[in-house]
Amino acid sequence: MTPVISIIMGSTSDLPIMEKAARFLNDMEIPFELLALSAHRTPHEVEEFARNAEGRGIKVIIAAAGMAAALPGVVAAGTTLPVIGVPIKGMLDGLDALFSINQMPPGIPVATVGVNAALNAAILALQILALGDAKMAQRLQAYKDGLCQKIVKANEELAALGDTYAYKC
Amino acid sequence: MTPVISIIMGSTSDLPIMEKAARFLNDMEIPFELLALSAHRTPHEVEEFARNAEGRGIKVIIAAAGMAAALPGVVAAGTTLPVIGVPIKGMLDGLDALFSINQMPPGIPVATVGVNAALNAAILALQILALGDAKMAQRLQAYKDGLCQKIVKANEELAALGDTYAYKC
Amino acid sequence: MTPVISIIMGSTSDLPIMEKAARFLNDMEIPFELLALSAHRTPHEVEEFARNAEGRGIKVIIAAAGMAAALPGVVAAGTTLPVIGVPIKGMLDGLDALFSINQMPPGIPVATVGVNAALNAAILALQILALGDAKMAQRLQAYKDGLCQKIVKANEELAALGDTYAYKC
Amino acid sequence: MTPVISIIMGSTSDLPIMEKAARFLNDMEIPFELLALSAHRTPHEVEEFARNAEGRGIKVIIAAAGMAAALPGVVAAGTTLPVIGVPIKGMLDGLDALFSINQMPPGIPVATVGVNAALNAAILALQILALGDAKMAQRLQAYKDGLCQKIVKANEELAALGDTYAYKC
Amino acid sequence: MTPVISIIMGSTSDLPIMEKAARFLNDMEIPFELLALSAHRTPHEVEEFARNAEGRGIKVIIAAAGMAAALPGVVAAGTTLPVIGVPIKGMLDGLDALFSINQMPPGIPVATVGVNAALNAAILALQILALGDAKMAQRLQAYKDGLCQKIVKANEELAALGDTYAYKC
Amino acid sequence: MTPVISIIMGSTSDLPIMEKAARFLNDMEIPFELLALSAHRTPHEVEEFARNAEGRGIKVIIAAAGMAAALPGVVAAGTTLPVIGVPIKGMLDGLDALFSINQMPPGIPVATVGVNAALNAAILALQILALGDAKMAQRLQAYKDGLCQKIVKANEELAALGDTYAYKC
Amino acid sequence: MTPVISIIMGSTSDLPIMEKAARFLNDMEIPFELLALSAHRTPHEVEEFARNAEGRGIKVIIAAAGMAAALPGVVAAGTTLPVIGVPIKGMLDGLDALFSINQMPPGIPVATVGVNAALNAAILALQILALGDAKMAQRLQAYKDGLCQKIVKANEELAALGDTYAYKC
Amino acid sequence: MTPVISIIMGSTSDLPIMEKAARFLNDMEIPFELLALSAHRTPHEVEEFARNAEGRGIKVIIAAAGMAAALPGVVAAGTTLPVIGVPIKGMLDGLDALFSINQMPPGIPVATVGVNAALNAAILALQILALGDAKMAQRLQAYKDGLCQKIVKANEELAALGDTYAYKC
Repeated sequence: MTPVISIIMGSTSDLPIMEKAARFLNDMEIPFELLALSAHRTPHEVEEFARNAEGRGIKVIIAAAGMAAALPGVVAAGTTLPVIGVPIKGMLDGLDALFSINQMPPGIPVATVGVNAALNAAILALQILALGDAKMAQRLQAYKDGLCQKIVKANEELAALGDTYAYKC
Repeated sequence: MTPVISIIMGSTSDLPIMEKAARFLNDMEIPFELLALSAHRTPHEVEEFARNAEGRGIKVIIAAAGMAAALPGVVAAGTTLPVIGVPIKGMLDGLDALFSINQMPPGIPVATVGVNAALNAAILALQILALGDAKMAQRLQAYKDGLCQKIVKANEELAALGDTYAYKC
Repeated sequence: MTPVISIIMGSTSDLPIMEKAARFLNDMEIPFELLALSAHRTPHEVEEFARNAEGRGIKVIIAAAGMAAALPGVVAAGTTLPVIGVPIKGMLDGLDALFSINQMPPGIPVATVGVNAALNAAILALQILALGDAKMAQRLQAYKDGLCQKIVKANEELAALGDTYAYKC
Repeated sequence: MTPVISIIMGSTSDLPIMEKAARFLNDMEIPFELLALSAHRTPHEVEEFARNAEGRGIKVIIAAAGMAAALPGVVAAGTTLPVIGVPIKGMLDGLDALFSINQMPPGIPVATVGVNAALNAAILALQILALGDAKMAQRLQAYKDGLCQKIVKANEELAALGDTYAYKC
Repeated sequence: MTPVISIIMGSTSDLPIMEKAARFLNDMEIPFELLALSAHRTPHEVEEFARNAEGRGIKVIIAAAGMAAALPGVVAAGTTLPVIGVPIKGMLDGLDALFSINQMPPGIPVATVGVNAALNAAILALQILALGDAKMAQRLQAYKDGLCQKIVKANEELAALGDTYAYKC
Repeated sequence: MTPVISIIMGSTSDLPIMEKAARFLNDMEIPFELLALSAHRTPHEVEEFARNAEGRGIKVIIAAAGMAAALPGVVAAGTTLPVIGVPIKGMLDGLDALFSINQMPPGIPVATVGVNAALNAAILALQILALGDAKMAQRLQAYKDGLCQKIVKANEELAALGDTYAYKC
Repeated sequence: MTPVISIIMGSTSDLPIMEKAARFLNDMEIPFELLALSAHRTPHEVEEFARNAEGRGIKVIIAAAGMAAALPGVVAAGTTLPVIGVPIKGMLDGLDALFSINQMPPGIPVATVGVNAALNAAILALQILALGDAKMAQRLQAYKDGLCQKIVKANEELAALGDTYAYKC
Repeated sequence: MTPVISIIMGSTSDLPIMEKAARFLNDMEIPFELLALSAHRTPHEVEEFARNAEGRGIKVIIAAAGMAAALPGVVAAGTTLPVIGVPIKGMLDGLDALFSINQMPPGIPVATVGVNAALNAAILALQILALGDAKMAQRLQAYKDGLCQKIVKANEELAALGDTYAYKC
């Protein structure tokens, strides 16, 4: 199937973080692609990628980068597709990547998620795809209900430790 | 026309920042609504808003908040629509709002733009709406070309001050 | 016995931190409950919990959360009981949680203790309960005297290493 | 009337911030006192104040301080009454005062509110006093309902600017 | 004369800062050019600029940018000429620009100067040009001696205020 | 009279801050000198100053500097006299100067006071001079008693605004 | 021998850091004492200690503390002896302790050394004692010469790895 | 061969970081020297080194330092050669070293690279040497092309995990 989401990252060392995004999209049966691209090491490829993404059927781009993380912003400069940026923690507690991705100048937004928040990037991508697609929105709602169930289960574990308060989702 | 984008904010004191988003959507002829809502002062209204937004035809929510900025995250908790968070600068250089919006737990993403970046929030919302809507994508592309023209004009001003290098967009 | 203090947290992964609060309340013979609740994953349950807490006999709520820690503030929005917030260290050295809990907007305070300071949250809760309850205040005073004794003991250990200065509490 | 809340601050330069606390307590008809005390300039007076506060009928202490803000912690060391700390913004964006007040060692908590958040300190003090005092809790609830009304009013102002969404508190 | 230094910046709003660099180069009789270029708004032009700079006779590039300051890094990606980055203060006290410029990934360095330090960028560019050019090195040395003379003069002013200690450069 | 304290600073622009130190020493009748010296602009003079200070009768050196504030540390490297460092606020909220002065490597301490804390630097210098000089220690004690009197006076002003609590130093 | 330097710390957990100070003073044959004291847990003892230190023959006090590190400032409030503060790293990378110790209000300085910089605290104490004591100053000078020898030795190790440049202290 | 690049560092403990610079220069066949020098422990040697470097044939100086990292700035004060500063991570996440090196006062620039970015320092030094040396510039270009090849290889690894997008450098 033609991928509709593109996950790009600067190096395979980001993969242990970003595979959470891949796994979620896989579970949700969303076709995606995984690419290594670097704003600083492969600038021509990044530009070409950004220019062609929409034509290839991509709907949302998830771009992960650490340090002086230019990749999400540079890709966003070359396309009108929404770009989701994932700051990767490295030096400076991840603040360098967060600021480099989040503080974009007027005109070129990047939808920034939390530091190392690959899973949330994938969920956000899916939320965008689900607009007007009732089936996908339902799958998302089911996923959210599952989040609630986890808390219920946590609650049951805590009940063993002290007085507790039972509730249902 | 039924609004498709909802801009919500904690108080009218955020309006001087957020009106840049409203003006952009207006220019782009996207129907939108403006609301005051507060996660801490009107929690029931926030929950009701989040639950009903999709049913009312809203596609994307732009939520602005400062300080311990819970609004974007709490709205995101109550809907599967994409929520764009705008951290408003107040105390602590805006880092309090940025961290409160950006560092969402796994499962509930907020698409965070820069501190006070209302315009970028609106552009991002439009990028999401434009998916599969060639006409809107074209309008965005035209807007981007305009950004380039501004730089060309800036360049001409600089030419008066020293040797310069002419280029076209 | 009906619990008078409610300790809530986003997940059981916060338990190794928060059990210090539970243990202290246990030692002080204060009935308490332990709950998992999440502002982002179980918003309805959080609202219901906040609305009903006072009616169930709860006097003070201790709410622990990490990252974009909305839980303490959202609970505080739904009750007039005092809410003590415990920022849990995760990403960004705990500053994200600290700012998300501490920088509440005017009208809805959260009594914030230090990062991971579960024990202090429990002591603060007890200080509130002890107001006008001379017996509980005495127990607290005894606890404080014990703090002083620890320092005396530390002093005796240091005496082995160099000249020292003896004192009593 | 005998004061039940004590507002202390290092100098009268903190008064423009702290008078919001005084005004709120005045409006709520809570008897309070205002004092200048400094952990570094009047250590004996601080110690005496802390030791005698409970005996004089004080229930809650609100302590404001800037920079290396030792006052709230030192007062907390000398009493079992709850101490609410207000970090005053001065140098370093208020982070110095926030960390000095918030990061108390185990055993001696300070209930920290936001930077310059004098009003929230007073509300929190009232929430503590209102425990078991149904009348005071009602007054607080009325105050909270007022917060919601402000948002409704803000909403009406926004309605003039674009499509809006009406709601009631 | 053909420019040997290129000063680029994202917009003419950076000019009040960057004109200190231009003025210094002018005083030192170094031919330079001033350009507006943006990594996010004119990506093609930036790439073309970087690719052609060396061929046009440019020796050193000074790139100023604020916020998510990708310009210096993206230019550095496209050339082997040394690129000097000037973080422009805007939001977040300039830390966003500093981290975005300074924390480059291995392989693509940017020679970062201080926040708003346009003059130092120009001096550094001249130090690079002066390598092996004894005359230019002499001019730099003369400039440095002048820095010392300013301190001597400051010293004389201070002598009026108290006992002082005379020295010569 | 031969100066016993040397106040050095990078430029006369630091004088509005540092004159508080000069005025205090003047009031306390301590002979001092004021000098402009720069670790980066007059390195030879700094080295010579550091080497000769003790021989000229200087007992304590107060060194003020902003930004990458090397002056206090470099002077400390050249003498065994105690060096008090005053970080001057400029860029980055004064954190750059604070870290540059405070975080000295093992072997070469600088006694750092707060950002812009010129008065405290002078008091600290006097505390060092007063060791074993009962008369000077008395003068310091008198100065401290004066600090307490200011708080008493502040207290009297506050008495007009609400109930208060009278005390004496 | 009567101690002339007093090293105080909040708990024996600070001892692994502070024993570097003790060892240095031991090597330099300076009589010292080691004490556990806490501004928050033993406030009366801290006050008594501060009031009596000078009478007992103490010349300089070294006070170590972490988190909301009030100890150095509170001791400084109670004596005219110079107080050297050592911020201990714990939470928040040690910034909480650094700000709590360094940012003292006007009138009560603390001579702050770097985070965990126990050795530098001891050297600074010795520099203060050595004023007017030529023999002690000589010992310090010898220690400084030793620092230089370490660098010479380091240089010899580096010579094995590449071309190097020989020098003597 | 006479070294043209000088790598200096405060101690051999910086060697595990700085050897990446040495190795790169070795691979590129650039003669270099490795030295231990400390602005605080060997100030005279640093001054002499700075004064003589140009005369000995050095073209570029790479100076690494941690904490209150004065070395790069002090060397820059004593020469007109370009000085590249490498902040070494130690305390405070490396921000202390970054600010101490980067925030130089007007007149004395240091070309700062990222925290621990020894390799980038060496590449930058080579970029400076390559100016006007076509052969060296070619070698650099080849190195950059190699960076791109690494990304291509990373891409091939990712292809095994999901749909991917093939490209060539």
